[in-house]
Amino acid sequence: MPVYAITIEYDGAAFSGWQKQPGRRTAQGTLEDALGVLARQPVRIQGASRTDAGVHAAGQVASFEIADDLDPAALVGGLSALCRPDLAVVEARLAPDGWNARFRSTGKRYRYRVLNRPAPSPLWGRWSWHVAGALDLAAMADAAARAVGTRDFAGFRAADCGRESTIRTLSRASVEDGSADGLIDFVFEGDGFLKNMVRILAGTIVDVGRGRMPAGIVDEAIATGDRRRAGRTAPAHGLVQEQVFYEGRGT
Amino acid sequence: MPVYAITIEYDGAAFSGWQKQPGRRTAQGTLEDALGVLARQPVRIQGASRTDAGVHAAGQVASFEIADDLDPAALVGGLSALCRPDLAVVEARLAPDGWNARFRSTGKRYRYRVLNRPAPSPLWGRWSWHVAGALDLAAMADAAARAVGTRDFAGFRAADCGRESTIRTLSRASVEDGSADGLIDFVFEGDGFLKNMVRILAGTIVDVGRGRMPAGIVDEAIATGDRRRAGRTAPAHGLVQEQVFYEGRGT
Repeated sequence: MPVYAITIEYDGAAFSGWQKQPGRRTAQGTLEDALGVLARQPVRIQGASRTDAGVHAAGQVASFEIADDLDPAALVGGLSALCRPDLAVVEARLAPDGWNARFRSTGKRYRYRVLNRPAPSPLWGRWSWHVAGALDLAAMADAAARAVGTRDFAGFRAADCGRESTIRTLSRASVEDGSADGLIDFVFEGDGFLKNMVRILAGTIVDVGRGRMPAGIVDEAIATGDRRRAGRTAPAHGLVQEQVFYEGRGT
Repeated sequence: MPVYAITIEYDGAAFSGWQKQPGRRTAQGTLEDALGVLARQPVRIQGASRTDAGVHAAGQVASFEIADDLDPAALVGGLSALCRPDLAVVEARLAPDGWNARFRSTGKRYRYRVLNRPAPSPLWGRWSWHVAGALDLAAMADAAARAVGTRDFAGFRAADCGRESTIRTLSRASVEDGSADGLIDFVFEGDGFLKNMVRILAGTIVDVGRGRMPAGIVDEAIATGDRRRAGRTAPAHGLVQEQVFYEGRGT
């Protein structure tokens, strides 16, 4: 059966996360319902990234098999129309037999946006965490840099994260100017992320920026594996899942 | 009486434009109501730019006089709290006696966002005009460049634009990569803009990009002053009023 790969964008506020759950509106469930209509049969979709409730996606990737050949352009148009306005399929393509968006992924990029100014933002409020007080940018960059490398991130995961191994390689953790005045972006790239790991990293970096913790707290939380050493979990709505990496191509 | 200058951000979808109108929710009216509460007296606000219904603002500037001294930080906090979530006051400062946000302005910058890809965008849909078909970027840049200079823009204004002189100087009209894949930004700077002028320029540039008109149509519409020569009026929700310029400082 043909395998398709799709790239998906969604507004996290509209969904109880990616993963299908009974009685909840999720991104996976919404897509599977729409694809069932187009394919005229139930279809199971495998997503690369299990985003939490409220987390946005600009470059989620998913894969599925269907019995019939469907034109990729028709998949983009049909799925986007059925899932609008909260979710859209940005790209669709035929993938090799047996291809799987989750297991073939070699890494992911997330962006966490902080709005750092006294006033909230009517334009960016939906896509950023509003932190009104002063932030020490150099201290935040220092804290972020300490997380880069192959580390045990047991101290940076949710209590209910079920993964056995907590070793991950973070290849990028940067603090950058965002695309509007007052926006600060944290960009994280790595081979994989534990549950809430990006949001705990972002919350810890902000706690360091506020002067509530020294940058060295990142080393301590890594060394001890103790969640209580790290900072708060930053709110979901500042986070966007931006890209999934595969061998040979970016997305 | 002390004069204050404020910088304002708003979501255009929430308002029937800037200018106060009886029975409509407008940005000016919302701000005057909130300021009346803080100042405990009616206050009249003068805005630099009369944005149309649906047009967003990231850098609208307004001025007002009030009898009492108010702390600028309290104005930012108080007005933003009273007008949330659709409008916020980003900055407030004391201005020289007699200062007026409209008459002291030396120019303005507007940004028009086009989303050019087959699928709509759940993240950018509110702030961009979705144009699904292919666009010729070089032709669009050519069309935009033809509008730069001191010109008679009579062909680029709404039928009900009441201004006597239609001569304006456009110092910048550029076609740029936007801040996400598929976004194309048109940036316009000039000493003043006629009613709907930016949206007609944007619509004409897109019509040229689609191949419906040659780039030279811009010269023709300027030479003839005939609105029917220019392209369509682009939708309001792609436009953001970004900055107002004054002698000696950007905003």
